[in-house]
Amino acid sequence: MSNIDTVINDLVIANRILAHENVVDAYGHISIRHPDKPQHFFISRSLAPDLVDREDIVELGLDGQPVREEKRVLYLERFIHAAIFEARPDVQSVVHAHAEDILPFGIAAATPLRPVVHSGSFIGAKVPVWDIADRFGDTNLLVTNMEQGRDLAKCLAANNVALMRGHGFASAARSLIEAVRMAVYLPRNARAQLAAVQLGGTIKYLSQGEIDARNRGYSPYSTETWRAWEYWASKAGCKHMLTKPSGSK
Amino acid sequence: MSNIDTVINDLVIANRILAHENVVDAYGHISIRHPDKPQHFFISRSLAPDLVDREDIVELGLDGQPVREEKRVLYLERFIHAAIFEARPDVQSVVHAHAEDILPFGIAAATPLRPVVHSGSFIGAKVPVWDIADRFGDTNLLVTNMEQGRDLAKCLAANNVALMRGHGFASAARSLIEAVRMAVYLPRNARAQLAAVQLGGTIKYLSQGEIDARNRGYSPYSTETWRAWEYWASKAGCKHMLTKPSGSK
Amino acid sequence: MSNIDTVINDLVIANRILAHENVVDAYGHISIRHPDKPQHFFISRSLAPDLVDREDIVELGLDGQPVREEKRVLYLERFIHAAIFEARPDVQSVVHAHAEDILPFGIAAATPLRPVVHSGSFIGAKVPVWDIADRFGDTNLLVTNMEQGRDLAKCLAANNVALMRGHGFASAARSLIEAVRMAVYLPRNARAQLAAVQLGGTIKYLSQGEIDARNRGYSPYSTETWRAWEYWASKAGCKHMLTKPSGSK
Amino acid sequence: MSNIDTVINDLVIANRILAHENVVDAYGHISIRHPDKPQHFFISRSLAPDLVDREDIVELGLDGQPVREEKRVLYLERFIHAAIFEARPDVQSVVHAHAEDILPFGIAAATPLRPVVHSGSFIGAKVPVWDIADRFGDTNLLVTNMEQGRDLAKCLAANNVALMRGHGFASAARSLIEAVRMAVYLPRNARAQLAAVQLGGTIKYLSQGEIDARNRGYSPYSTETWRAWEYWASKAGCKHMLTKPSGSK
Repeated sequence: MSNIDTVINDLVIANRILAHENVVDAYGHISIRHPDKPQHFFISRSLAPDLVDREDIVELGLDGQPVREEKRVLYLERFIHAAIFEARPDVQSVVHAHAEDILPFGIAAATPLRPVVHSGSFIGAKVPVWDIADRFGDTNLLVTNMEQGRDLAKCLAANNVALMRGHGFASAARSLIEAVRMAVYLPRNARAQLAAVQLGGTIKYLSQGEIDARNRGYSPYSTETWRAWEYWASKAGCKHMLTKPSGSK
Repeated sequence: MSNIDTVINDLVIANRILAHENVVDAYGHISIRHPDKPQHFFISRSLAPDLVDREDIVELGLDGQPVREEKRVLYLERFIHAAIFEARPDVQSVVHAHAEDILPFGIAAATPLRPVVHSGSFIGAKVPVWDIADRFGDTNLLVTNMEQGRDLAKCLAANNVALMRGHGFASAARSLIEAVRMAVYLPRNARAQLAAVQLGGTIKYLSQGEIDARNRGYSPYSTETWRAWEYWASKAGCKHMLTKPSGSK
Repeated sequence: MSNIDTVINDLVIANRILAHENVVDAYGHISIRHPDKPQHFFISRSLAPDLVDREDIVELGLDGQPVREEKRVLYLERFIHAAIFEARPDVQSVVHAHAEDILPFGIAAATPLRPVVHSGSFIGAKVPVWDIADRFGDTNLLVTNMEQGRDLAKCLAANNVALMRGHGFASAARSLIEAVRMAVYLPRNARAQLAAVQLGGTIKYLSQGEIDARNRGYSPYSTETWRAWEYWASKAGCKHMLTKPSGSK
Repeated sequence: MSNIDTVINDLVIANRILAHENVVDAYGHISIRHPDKPQHFFISRSLAPDLVDREDIVELGLDGQPVREEKRVLYLERFIHAAIFEARPDVQSVVHAHAEDILPFGIAAATPLRPVVHSGSFIGAKVPVWDIADRFGDTNLLVTNMEQGRDLAKCLAANNVALMRGHGFASAARSLIEAVRMAVYLPRNARAQLAAVQLGGTIKYLSQGEIDARNRGYSPYSTETWRAWEYWASKAGCKHMLTKPSGSK
């Protein structure tokens, strides 16, 4: 496979994994920046992630518009991806989803979502909550243009995850595998935190030093990282599609 | 397929989706108004929704009785559907189910169920709770005649969902797909609201303006709506039965 | 099939349903009284219910001992069944299981389990909690002889379900299908009640009149009852084993 | 099969069971002491437990290093196993996992995890919480050398389970089957305890006498123990791999 073929192949796997792990249902999407043209990114046309195949992947610019003529309908909220890729040159992959267990933290004001388990460290010490109503008033809550996308990206700032009030989350990562990993463990961290609140007493969050230490140790193609990718792909019925990228070690 | 064949085909798909998404088990049902004869509606004979096939669909009048001779046993609670179709000419599809996660909101008086997530907006700003005991005293809680059905329809009034105390819910929608969608996301909204209550602090509900904005944007055959229908049907093993109605775009 | 063959066949189906519905795992069991010899009952040898087949069913007396020479190991806790059949001539089927969601109600003293949803009405207005330690002190919590079984049966008295502190529940029903149904909906009622407690405020339990009304309407072979049996058997992969008993209507 | 072949075969089954029962995902591992060389133990190479096969099992020494030349990558946290086997000659099998439902008890200070259900008795009366930060400050939370492993083993002391703050648990058992059993029922006990806390009021924990009585009755190859092993293996698709060890009865 060429490098681009591999990227598209991996994006298809990522779609199926997010569906199988209940991060997305018919809604929610994942994108990856073009490896050679940083002003472009790949994402599926408007389709449930579980049904996405190679031919469903389209190439968009940082304005959220297709770079080639495209008659198929695109995701309404592709501007989330465009705006984050625009604002954050360090970001290689973006996820937007409605994963159920993170929703309460965008609705209830009392308890900010924070890393409590080591697998949740990658969400970062601060998870801002973006409320579309603050700037845009009464909307259908969807991010349907660049102005809204940029406002979300501004709230996300240099963090890895922003909750979207009454809607879901947007996350940004340095690689596709890390984006998937964060999207899978974000709801787990939320469940653990909610249950800890219910048990009561002081809660021990991960320290900034622990978050940093975990971050330093992260490598997108380490054996440890690959182990999860292989496992999730296998569970999602995609084991036959796995290809270790040439950059792996 | 003729229009009626398509309607019946879609009703079978809807039955299987509701079963697969755990909205119904052996109990609970979905109906659709006859497209040409608004005084009639289609619903399965007494059968678990997961097992429903085309030949199980029967045609009933707004009195809840079959319009043709019918020897098979019918749902005891078909009067829920008849009474709502009678009271609400705008309604094309009705669901009654016992989806577990909405039950607490019909039992506990303290917290009314309200939309907290965008996918829950279609339940509407107000979800009344109907208690059969208020008018009928000690019953088996089932809606087994038109009088009870009409009392429920009166409580539902112009809303989209009524909870039924200690029993389940009845919902009314402008299309079959919208009815399915509401039935799937209603329990999700309930789970998110319960968890938000547990986190504590002020809860941000969807505003009336947001509910209205989402409502205005809804189209039963938009790509966005179809995406979920296709996904749920695929998960329920019905992908081969999908037919885009001629009215779709 | 002879009547006995049908009884054994249905008992196998019941075992598989309880496993598939997560009422039992490797532990827990269901029994049925011999239709012609009320001093005997059928139950599996010591085996996970999901793996039970016709040849695994053994016939025991009301002392919990096999009525024929039997070299296979029997359930340690078969005395639960023997003692309840002994004390309650009205009972045709007994379940003992550790269904997870009922456990909290046997551990936490504050909130008695009570019917809050119509499908939970069959557990009855009062669900006593039996604590083996009250009479037998420090044991392994298992009911391993008739004395312990009789103490449990005494606590159960004329009720349908007794919780067993730190262990599970024992339930008694008028038919095999009713026993399965109660065992499936008992945990659902427990979940709904726990969530209602979390929502707070006054909780509306089913009234005694409602429980009685539902009880009066129950018929073991009605279409409504059969609908669930057929559905659960189908989900558990036993649809081909279904036989409407000759007493059905 | 030779004794060693049987041990390796059973270890593969144990890996698949823990994956299927959601105790592990891509991360987490189980080991067994070498039956003839107590200074060695078997564990998989770095691989998701669900994908482990016989050829993936490696033999390590009590320093956590392979006893033969090994080019494949090993689990980073194999030192958990090495240090517990070193400190506890009575222990035959060790599990480390991140099972989600135990996490809150390592994070929230208020409520110690304790046995509340009979199947949870094997975790023992006291479950200490080990916080890697107490001695090692800001780390990535992983146990990646013998010094950290020994500190964890010291906290575990003579208990059966230690929670690891923000990370998971380590458990030690007298046999492979007991280790699996404890790992499956530990999260169940945690869920039951959390729900009991939510119900409120006094909670009845298992008494020390009950824990002791259950412990005395335990036999790794009893029919009761085997019943669960056979069931879990069957669910995990490993029924054909089952072999009753020669020591069974």
